[in-house]
Formats: sequence, structure tokens, C-alpha cells
Amino acid sequence: MAILLTDVQTSIQQTRQQHATELEAIACYRRAANYLAAAQIYLKDNVLLREPLKPEHIKDRLLGHWGTCPGINLVYAHANSLIRRHDVNMFLVTGPGHGAPANLANLYLEGTLHEFYPEMTLDGAGIYQFIKSFSWPGGFPSHLYPGTPGTIHEGGELGYALATAFGAVMDNPDLIVTCIVGDGEAETGPTATAWHSYKYIDPAESGAVIPILHANGYKISSVTIYGAMSDEELSHLFTGYGYQVRIVQDADLDADMYDALEWAYQQIIYIQQAARAGKRIAQPRFPMLILRSLKGWTGIKEINGKPIEGSFRSHQVPTKEAKTHPDLLKLLEEWLRSYRLEELFDVQGCPIPAVLEQCPQGHRRMGCNRHAFGGKVRKDLDLPDIFKFAVPVERSSKSDENQRGKEIVSNVGELGQYMRAVVENNAKTFRIFSPDELESNLLTDVFQVTHRNFQWPTQPHDTYMGIEGGRVLEILSEHTCQGWLQGYLLTGRHGLFPSYEAFLGIVTTMMDQYAKFIQFSKEYAWRLPVASLNYLETSTLWRQEHNGFSHQNPGFINSVLDQQAMSARVYLPPDANCLISTIDHCLQSKGYINLVIANKNPLPQWLSMPEAIAHCRAGASVWRWASTDDGVNPDVVLVGIGDVPTVEVLAAAHTLQAEMPELRVRVVNVTDLLILEEKTTHPHGLDADMFEALFTVDRPVIVNFHGYPSVPKQLLFGRPQSRRFLINGYREEGTTTTPFDMLVRNKTSRFHLIMQAIRLAARVNPQVAAHANEKVSHYEYVLAQHREFIREKGTDPAEITDWHWS
Amino acid sequence: MAILLTDVQTSIQQTRQQHATELEAIACYRRAANYLAAAQIYLKDNVLLREPLKPEHIKDRLLGHWGTCPGINLVYAHANSLIRRHDVNMFLVTGPGHGAPANLANLYLEGTLHEFYPEMTLDGAGIYQFIKSFSWPGGFPSHLYPGTPGTIHEGGELGYALATAFGAVMDNPDLIVTCIVGDGEAETGPTATAWHSYKYIDPAESGAVIPILHANGYKISSVTIYGAMSDEELSHLFTGYGYQVRIVQDADLDADMYDALEWAYQQIIYIQQAARAGKRIAQPRFPMLILRSLKGWTGIKEINGKPIEGSFRSHQVPTKEAKTHPDLLKLLEEWLRSYRLEELFDVQGCPIPAVLEQCPQGHRRMGCNRHAFGGKVRKDLDLPDIFKFAVPVERSSKSDENQRGKEIVSNVGELGQYMRAVVENNAKTFRIFSPDELESNLLTDVFQVTHRNFQWPTQPHDTYMGIEGGRVLEILSEHTCQGWLQGYLLTGRHGLFPSYEAFLGIVTTMMDQYAKFIQFSKEYAWRLPVASLNYLETSTLWRQEHNGFSHQNPGFINSVLDQQAMSARVYLPPDANCLISTIDHCLQSKGYINLVIANKNPLPQWLSMPEAIAHCRAGASVWRWASTDDGVNPDVVLVGIGDVPTVEVLAAAHTLQAEMPELRVRVVNVTDLLILEEKTTHPHGLDADMFEALFTVDRPVIVNFHGYPSVPKQLLFGRPQSRRFLINGYREEGTTTTPFDMLVRNKTSRFHLIMQAIRLAARVNPQVAAHANEKVSHYEYVLAQHREFIREKGTDPAEITDWHWS
Repeated sequence: MAILLTDVQTSIQQTRQQHATELEAIACYRRAANYLAAAQIYLKDNVLLREPLKPEHIKDRLLGHWGTCPGINLVYAHANSLIRRHDVNMFLVTGPGHGAPANLANLYLEGTLHEFYPEMTLDGAGIYQFIKSFSWPGGFPSHLYPGTPGTIHEGGELGYALATAFGAVMDNPDLIVTCIVGDGEAETGPTATAWHSYKYIDPAESGAVIPILHANGYKISSVTIYGAMSDEELSHLFTGYGYQVRIVQDADLDADMYDALEWAYQQIIYIQQAARAGKRIAQPRFPMLILRSLKGWTGIKEINGKPIEGSFRSHQVPTKEAKTHPDLLKLLEEWLRSYRLEELFDVQGCPIPAVLEQCPQGHRRMGCNRHAFGGKVRKDLDLPDIFKFAVPVERSSKSDENQRGKEIVSNVGELGQYMRAVVENNAKTFRIFSPDELESNLLTDVFQVTHRNFQWPTQPHDTYMGIEGGRVLEILSEHTCQGWLQGYLLTGRHGLFPSYEAFLGIVTTMMDQYAKFIQFSKEYAWRLPVASLNYLETSTLWRQEHNGFSHQNPGFINSVLDQQAMSARVYLPPDANCLISTIDHCLQSKGYINLVIANKNPLPQWLSMPEAIAHCRAGASVWRWASTDDGVNPDVVLVGIGDVPTVEVLAAAHTLQAEMPELRVRVVNVTDLLILEEKTTHPHGLDADMFEALFTVDRPVIVNFHGYPSVPKQLLFGRPQSRRFLINGYREEGTTTTPFDMLVRNKTSRFHLIMQAIRLAARVNPQVAAHANEKVSHYEYVLAQHREFIREKGTDPAEITDWHWS
Repeated sequence: MAILLTDVQTSIQQTRQQHATELEAIACYRRAANYLAAAQIYLKDNVLLREPLKPEHIKDRLLGHWGTCPGINLVYAHANSLIRRHDVNMFLVTGPGHGAPANLANLYLEGTLHEFYPEMTLDGAGIYQFIKSFSWPGGFPSHLYPGTPGTIHEGGELGYALATAFGAVMDNPDLIVTCIVGDGEAETGPTATAWHSYKYIDPAESGAVIPILHANGYKISSVTIYGAMSDEELSHLFTGYGYQVRIVQDADLDADMYDALEWAYQQIIYIQQAARAGKRIAQPRFPMLILRSLKGWTGIKEINGKPIEGSFRSHQVPTKEAKTHPDLLKLLEEWLRSYRLEELFDVQGCPIPAVLEQCPQGHRRMGCNRHAFGGKVRKDLDLPDIFKFAVPVERSSKSDENQRGKEIVSNVGELGQYMRAVVENNAKTFRIFSPDELESNLLTDVFQVTHRNFQWPTQPHDTYMGIEGGRVLEILSEHTCQGWLQGYLLTGRHGLFPSYEAFLGIVTTMMDQYAKFIQFSKEYAWRLPVASLNYLETSTLWRQEHNGFSHQNPGFINSVLDQQAMSARVYLPPDANCLISTIDHCLQSKGYINLVIANKNPLPQWLSMPEAIAHCRAGASVWRWASTDDGVNPDVVLVGIGDVPTVEVLAAAHTLQAEMPELRVRVVNVTDLLILEEKTTHPHGLDADMFEALFTVDRPVIVNFHGYPSVPKQLLFGRPQSRRFLINGYREEGTTTTPFDMLVRNKTSRFHLIMQAIRLAARVNPQVAAHANEKVSHYEYVLAQHREFIREKGTDPAEITDWHWS
């Protein structure tokens, strides 16, 4: 059957016409979104401009960021179009979160806001509620936040959008996350390295990110690096990162963005289908877009001869003085009316069907994508029985107590066996994100059942690497690890972040921001809690004697403590069984930041698994077996917090009982740091009775703490008679030296504890006082001898794990 | 005159021959350096292998990193050659600082070590001292540190070498810094964005960096991203960053590196000469090198069939068990002897002249470059008279005290005028490094006398931009700002780092590492102190009501406090005169981390300049004029720490005196936070008498603190009766709201202070007790009314700067 030429021409013409109509409809939708974005920033009344704009319609405080909004609206509108065309499972991560008015405008139009905020109906009454609510006390804040449905990233502190987006698509093979990266944000280090993320995405197993670098040229008051770079430079750069690059900057941005997103989508499908059909493309080059649009596009062109659109002056609120300056009010009104809202909203104030039809339906709306509600998607992990991994601490009778501390193993190494089972049991919902430390941190056992995922070429002799699957992601960027994990958790999965203790502080403010997100999430019933963010700090300072001063930094504890009490948890398990029990607890918990601190080097084991579970549940206990007369009526209380400091406490107590039996010592171990806090301040805080049961009412207490002394100090502040607590900890004294010398330099060694105990006990016990000076002198001499030995031989007189040595 | 063809041929041949001899000499030098690097890691005796290697010659603890050393030695050797050829003013910044054995080997050979460590002579005795000292308690630690001459960067925490190198060359037109960036370090965000640094280097005014990406392919236990990238990808990436890229990977690395460094040098000279001759090359493309060499190159090839050279197994210490395993000992000996050291050292153990001749002389030695000894180069700033910038706080008589607080100005805005003069007076030794915040932070006055330097194209309507000069560098990367500033300070200059308070925490661990460097530097008399690192935290949380929760984070204070007391300083000046006086002090100081916290919004002014100077010198004072009866015999002490919290204290005291004159209140302001610390712990700490003079012996004290309550708590811990201190501060309660609502949410508002004061005073003053409940109820009602107003109107009932409002 012959096809007539005229038919083909007609068909082409029809397609063209159809496409033109489609683009027109998208542009119409964008006008509505742009209007709503601008109106939110300025208006508290007359929100549809049904009467001339007057000062009393303007909000008293104009807070918001206009400049980035039109670009977000362009992306949102075309993402909607793509979703509708291909039924795409997609949501948006917005780096420039201060463009919230844009996101909110789209969420309003697609009806998402109405579902979560019933008063925000799609009519005149709802639109008034919606527009007034922005930047209003109790309403929507000026940037994205957990109260914005469909949001897993605030974008307040810049730099983390891209890594978060990649975390979200891992193990979600059908999900595509469109991620807008502002050209301000692109200047940050965390973003600059997150571009490598595709090197860790198995296209068979995971979904894809469409990164859109939004180069509108300006930050708050200055040009951006990426805005100033030429097309050629940008193409080179992102080609180098491994992308296929497409620049969207046509005179007709709608037409160009339409084609670009369609192209990106097809490229992704092509790569994914190949991988899923077992015909992997080596080092697949995923698509990314660079959008060049004017900052504050469609806004006021200029004021007093100074450009506004296309300049940094669009960044926040142009015409900030509109309420008091009639000329500016007029400019504002002209601008707002330029969107021809009378064509966009009917007499009831309802958006017209042509606008609403641009939005996807139900869970295809980006604000309603199920993955963005991680708490609802989340399923409990299938955790192994911890008793299978128990380190035996044998005791058949009371007299057998001496067996405690005989077994010497790596706490983290033992944990590795448990983690192996966790990985094995949870094939698609658990990942380990680590800055190249898994082997170094002795969690190597995990590699019995999985490997590192890495998509770029490796050598045959490289170990534990693979392009298919792999539960372990290692990149020497704590920022990227944290961002990936955040995205993974907030989409309902689980993870662990092991890191060198000294370098976890690199993500201090990322953790702060995430804690704020988690905290604020609790105010929204529809945000069910996601799995806790679990940090395992290892390669801890007391055994960084080889790496030196730069590797000795326990400051992350302080940072976690400053988070809201409802979120922050800090654990310092003293041995392997306590560590396994603690991690097991953390992996079951929801909505917390759990910081677990454990040294990787071999250490003595103290508690059997049942004892460990009880100890961890209590958070702290008197270790009667290490105390004089079960710790009754002590002259002094020795408290270990942290694994290595606890060894010194046990060593000191052992020596004191052998050498000065008249000095009555009680040994306490604290594994849950927050029990020190007052009960009114933290849910784990001990009440006065429990506190006294551990630390007595008035006896001197020597605390040997793992980190900075400032930590116990701030926690114990406010406890009665807090001056009886003597706090030892890391005093920023370190270098490359021996393990024991690290303790000596910071005055946390067994000899320091012994001397402190004698001095303090002498105040309350005359028998001790009788020869206190003599004894202290003796231990000062012993200590000096040991130091001399270290200087001469370059090594310790004995292993610090030997707690019987003095 | 005709030139005979044979003459030309002879000449070419001679040149070739000369070049070959030169390369041979360099290779010979490298052998010596490689031997010394390896020997340091393993040997404590028989350091020149004059007898067969035995277990007792091996150190008891083998600590060190071999893998990166051969690459560093290659660079060092060829940098030496370049320096000698062209008399180049150059030093080295080594990103992989754990390659210290390599740096030390070169420093030994060039005689630098002998100058600073006299026992390390260039003979058998000296070489023994030198080799044994590495990774030995009291000796050289395993990575670079302040005790390494010529070092301005440790490289312990990875990511900051590149930015530091760029900071060093700023305003040092003749200096070239060669900077080795490891391929592990290259994965970090801070490095990934620091590659843009050349966009901020004016080639007429500043020197140049030769970045060398050392892609040896491996981190601790895994491959690196940059090692896995193809030559094409790497070329694209760095071309995109704006570089001319040259990959050094020839079979003959010496020949290739020789040519590459020569090329890089010539490119730099070409760009610089053009700029200095007034014929600038637009967007000049500076050179960078990518060195592909085997990890652990020249080391042991394999053990038990597993490759060592060219694999991650070279990272630290191959043959770690050499002391106890004869087979490994043999392998080690073979490896060490493979450098043919009998050809390199004479019978006295002196390196042969051919080796020593490869080193530059005097200050051209990279370990002796004058710029790397910043404390010696440093000159005091020419600071303006602060009285010229005094904000008038008029008082002609006692009755005039009411005039205090009437003047309302931006503290930071006033400081801007002073900073303008600082910039003007110190044209080449002072810079401001800022993450795009200078205008936003109201330091705009500085732009009256300078501009932002930016080398890439800008628009005519952009403000305060220029490619020539410019004392302000703005990049939206706190990491890069910090790195640049560190490099600038450590080479003897001065700077200021203004930042949004919430985001300064991004550089928490960079600051930690820098503080460690500064601290350790104090142990070396030849390291004279450099200018202090001055942070100005502004856009503080109490007035981030518009930007919301993510912009409210005072945690950097806690981080600074954990540094050693000798280095850490935190100031919270209450008004403009105090701020100017504080910054003036900080700019004169040396060797500190100064954190100054000041809000940028207009605030009441309290003290005249002479009063401000006295107040800042004391660190804290009783503000008699705001207290009942000059603050004598108070019922309660109200303490303001921070500018906004102090306004609330003054407002509360004002109201109490008006409404409850029987309640005797004392107002104290603390501007130097560390006065709270005990004198034995911090040099600024007050002794008991001074402390009691401010805070009484036993009266209740209400502290209204700017940041987290954990800060005063840890500082006041240990003071007698610390429980009488009630600590208000930021409780992580925030969002986009009004300024007053921020105070209300965190219970730091005037009304909270009033109610707290009444309740506490009632315990000690029966007159107050008589109607305390009634008064508290009244203020609870007033507070509720205010909250209602805020919810309804979206604005505060009055400006919080109005301290007479209640």
C-alpha cells in the first residue's frame, strides 16, 4: 500500500503542531508557577490581583529568594511533561533549596500541598492560604524543609544535593531523580567531587540521576565560577567526569529543555536496558544537562538603570521597599501582572484545566513519589542473632573472675563477622559507605559475602572489587559518603558509615543539617521516622600512635551532643560483645544519629554477651568484679568511658587492689554517654537516685574519658557536687609515638589514675593518707622509668592490652 | 660565515650527551633518596648495610608509608634540577604528607636537616641519627609536621594541599610552589574545587603553582578514581578546569618529568611576563602535570605471588614481619641493596659529591626557602587608629546614662570602615577570604578601596570585580577560603575570614588540623609565630530568622574551644566599638585561632571607645549603669554573652528596675568567652577573686549566651557552686520566623530572663518573693500576647533593638 506524500507531510505537520501546542501548554503552566512563586514572596492579600496592588497587600517582612525560582519552574514543568509522556517514576532534589517558592508553587498546582495541608485547596480560598503562608511564622520557611512533601534535601547549606540524589537511586532500579545543582553550590567541594558518583552506580541494580547544573551566573552578590566558564570549558569538565553533556540555552528554553530531558531519559533507558539484559556498556556515560538561564528570568528588567533580571540583584527580593515606595509597588504590580494571571485562574481562583493538566497524577506527582517518604517505605532489617557472634568470656564461678580480660581480640574485627551476616541477610536494603577504610578498619570480614562496587576499570590483582552489585561503596570523600547515606536512608533503607575517628568531623555541618532535618521531620505525622544514621568511629586516637597528631581528633562527639536531645546518641562500648550489642540496637533504631566509637586494635574482653546486653541496656554499671568488696563503700570511683581508657581503669584498679588493698575502689563503666546528662535534658539521662547508685553521693570520682574533657564537663554540669568529678581525657597532646606514651602524654594512663586515686582517697581514708605520698612517689618513679624505656627502645615495656602490667 | 654540517651534528650530539648525563645524575640522586626513604621506615641500625641485615637492625615498630615515596622523590629531584637550571624561587607542598620519609630523605641530602638538627650530619654518624629518628618516640613522626623545615602543610588530613599552595603564592610574584596532589586526596571535595584556584590568581601580582596529580592508582586498600580514569578523561577534566595538561608516564620517567617541569616553568614565565608587561593573556591556561607512576615504584615486586609494587600493598610497610620472618628479611635486604648504596655513599658514609651536587644551594634549597618560614618573613600590619572609627556613645553626666543604647548601627557595618583602612594601609600583605559573603555580611565599605579578584570573564554591570589586584577573594567554598588563608598566613602575611556563622563549621577539621600545626610549631624556636587566623562569624543565628533553621548553627565555638588553650580565643563583642577594638587586637596578635562573633543587623551601642577598650582588655565587666545601685549586693546577676543576647539582658534589666525596683539586679557582659575558664586551664581564665567580683560568691546567675548552652557549661564546670548558674542559649529551636520569635523559641528573650530573674531572686529576697508568682504570671501573659501578635501579623510587635520595649 502506497503512502501518499501529502499524508506524510500532513503527519509531520500534525506532529509539529502537536509539539508546538504541547510546548505552549508547558509555557502556560510555567507562567502560573512563576506567578505563584513571586506572589508568595510579596503578597499577604489580594493574592490574585483582583484589585489594584496596594501597600497593605504586601507582607510586612519580605523574605525569600526569587532569582533561582524561574529555573526550577522550568525544570519542574518539563520533568512533569516527561513523567506524563513515559510514566516515569521520578522526583526532584533541589540544590538551591531557597528556591522553595518555586517548588511550593508546583506542589500547589499538582495538588500535593492540598493533600498534606487541607486548607490549601485549588481555589481562591486555598490560594490565599498558600501564598500567605510562605515565610510566615508557623508557615513555610524560606527554604525547603521536612514540611515540604516530596523533599529529602533542604538545600540550606549548599553542596550536598548531588550526593543525596545518588543515594536515593541506589537499589531503586526504576527511580530517576532529577537533581538541580545551582552554580553557587557547584563551587563547593562536596559537589565538585560528587559528580564522580556514577562511577559507583551499577545500572542493572540502581536507578539514575539526571543532574542539571543551573548556571544562572550569580550568587548573592557576585558572579559564579560556572557561570563564567565557557561552553567549551564546561563540556570538557563534565566529559572528563564521565558524562554526556548537553547545554540547554536555546532562545526557546522550553523547546530546548523538552528535547534535552527526552534525550537524557532515552540515554538512561538505553544504558540501563543494556546492563539489565546482560550486555553492559563499559564505563557508561550517563547524561547531564547544563541549563543557562537568566537569574530572575521573567522578573523585573531593571530599576534605576541597574539590571535586575540576569544579575545578582535578582538573588533575593527585588523591590524590597515595595510596601513603602509607590514607584516600586508599581513596578512590582507590572511584573506580577505580566504573567497574565487572568488567563491562568478562573473567577473562583481555580487554576484553569489547561494548567492543571500539565501535572502528573497520584504517586507520579513529584511531591507524592513514594520513595521520597522513606519512613513509609522502610522495612526493618533482618538482623542475625547476636549470640552467634558472642566472644566467649568464660566464668564458671566467682573465683573465675580473673578470666575476664584474658581474651584479647579486635572489637571491630568481631563486629565485622556480625556485619557480614547483616549484609548477607539484607541484600538490597543495606549498604556500607566508607571513605576507603573498610579493610583498614578491620571490617574485612564483610568482603566474604560482598565487594566494593566500582564501575571504572580495575586490575585483575585488585581485591574485592566488582561492577555488579556490591554492598560497599568506598570513596575518599566523607562528604560523598554522608550524602549518599542520607539519600539512601531518607528513601527508606539502612546503612553504616565507618570512618577514621579523626576525619568524621569533616562532615560536622552535614551531620548538623541532617540532624535538623530529622528533628523537624518529627513535627509531621506523615513523615514516619527513617532508619537511624549510624556512624562507626574507629581507628580511634589512642591507637593512632603510628599516624600521628593529625589522626587524633575526637571532636565529632561534641558536635553530635549539640544536636537536639531527641536525636543524638553516643555510645562507647568497652568490648566486642558490647559493641555488637550496641550496633544491633542502632540498626533497629529509627530517627536517631547514633555515634558508636570503637578501637580496631586487639583489646581485652570483659563481659559475656548476656552481661553485655544488660550493661548496654543500663548504659552504665558498676563492675563489681573489678571493685573492692563489690564496690560497696568506695573511697574513690574510677570510671572508664571508652574502650582504651577502660583498660587503663581496670589496670589501675587491679594494681590498687594488689598494692593498696586498704584503698577501696569502685569501677564503673559508661557505655551510653548520655546517661551522664540530666534526665530532664536527655531521655537517657539518669535520675538522681540512679546517678548516686553509680557515682555515690559524695565520693571523689575519676573519669577516664575517651575524648575531650569538655564532654563529661558539659554533661555533668548541674549535677550536685560536680567538683568531685576529676575529668581525664584527650588534651590535644599527641604525635607518632607508642600506644602507652599517648596515654602518658594525655595523663590518662594507669599510673596517672593510680596516683590520682591515691591522692583523692587520702582525703577520705586515713589508712590511705598514711602512706599516700610515699606511694605516689613510687608510681611517679615507675612512670619515669617507663618513659625512659620508650625513648630508648622506641617501644612500650609491654602491650597496653596487658592490664596486669604496672 | 658558513657553519659546517658536522659542527651542528657535533653540537647536537654534545647537547644530547650532556642531557643524558644530567638525567643519569638525577637518577643516581633518586636512588639515594629512595634508599634513605626506605631505610628510615625499617632500620634502627646497620643503616648503610655495611654488614648483612639482621633482625636486630630492624625497628621494633614499623610505622610509615612507602608507596607514595618514590613519586615524591622523582618530583623533588626534578624540582631541584629546575631550580638549579633557572635559579627558581620554589618550595614544595606535599599533599601525601605520609610520604614524609621521601621529603626527609631530600632534606637530609640537601643539608637542610643538618642546619635544624645539628646531629644529622652528612656522614655515617649523622645518617644513623637521621634514619633511626623516623617514627621514633620524640623523633620525626610518620607524616610531615612543623618540625620538618620548609613545610607549611602536613598532609595528614587529605584535601587541603592545593588550596594551601595557592595561598602561599599570592602576592609573592617570584615564588613558584610545586604541589603534589595524591590520587587519594584528589577524591576529596576540597581538592576537587581547589583546582579552580587559578581563576583567582593575578599573574602580574602573584606567583604560580605547579600542581602535580600523582596518580599511582591506589589508596590504603583500594583503587583510586583518578588512577582508574583514562588519559582522555583526565585531559578533558583538567582542560575544563582551565589548565594545560601534560601527562608524565613515559617509560623513561626521568626524561619525561625533566621535560614536563621545564615546559611548565616556561609556560608560567610566559604568562607572567605577558601580564607584567601589560599584555595580559585572557583567561591564561596555566600548566599542570599528571604523573602516572607505580605505587611503591622500585620496591619489592611481589610476595607469595601477590604484586607489591604497583598495588595497594605498597601503601604502608611491605614486609612488615621482616624482623621475625627470615624470608621477608631477605627480601627486604635485597630490595634495599638494589639501590646500590655502595655507589652512593663513601666509606665514611658521606653521600658522594655527584649526589650532593644535585641539590640547590642555600635558600634555594626547598627546605630552606624563606617563604616557608612565615614567622620570620612576617611584618606587623600598619593598623589605623581605632578612635577614628569610634561610634559616639555620648554621656556628659551620670544622668546621661540613658543615652546608652540609643544609637542603633550595624556593628559589622562599622567594622567595615575600619577594615577599609586596614586594606588601604596594607596593599600587599593583607587579604580577605570569603565564601561570597562580603556584601551580604555588610563589610561592603571595603569595596571603596579594593575589589574582588576574578580572572574569568564578567559582565560590565557586575560590581566590584577586577582581574588586576583586588584584596578580596570570594569563592563559595569555605574549604578553599581556609586553605588559601592558611597558605597566606604560613608564608608570613595576614588575613580575615568572614563567614556566615552557620557555615564556618564546614571547615571544622581543617581548623583543627591548622590549630595542631600552630600548636606543634611552638615547640620549634626557628618557627617564629605567624599572624593569627582570624575568623569573623557573622550573619549569626539570632538574625537568621529569614534564612531559617539550616542557617542557625553556632557549633564552631565548641570546636575552637577544644583546641589547646594556648591557641584558642573566642570573642563575642557586644557592640561596634568593642568589635573594632577586638579585631584590632586580633590583627596584631600572633599564633592564635581568633573566633570573633558579631551580628550584622543594626543593634544598640553601649560603650564609648575608651570604655570598649577597657572592657575588651578585661574580657568582662559589671555594667554598673545598667545595674541596681551600681550592681552592689545583687539578688541576681544577669550575664550577656553575645550581642543579641546582651540586648535582651539590658531589656530585662531595664524592665525589672522599672517594674520591680526591689529586685536588685547586676548586669555583666562577657566579651572574651575564655575568662569563664579556670585560670589553671586557660591563660585568659579569671582567678577566683576576679570571678567572684563579677559573679558574686553565691547569688544566682542567669547567663544569656549566644551559642549552645554546652559552652558555658563546660567552661564553668569546676567553678565553686556552679549549679547557681542558669544557662540559656541556642536550643536548636528555629525556623523562618521573626527575630523576636527566635529568642522566644529558645527561651532567651527578655521575658524569659525577667521570669527567671524573679523566680531566682525570690529565693534570696523576701520582698521579691512576696509577689513573684503574680509578676511571673503577668509576664507569661505578656509573652503569650506577643506570640499571638507574631502569628497573626507575621512580624514582631516592635524591633528587638528597642531595649525599652516590653
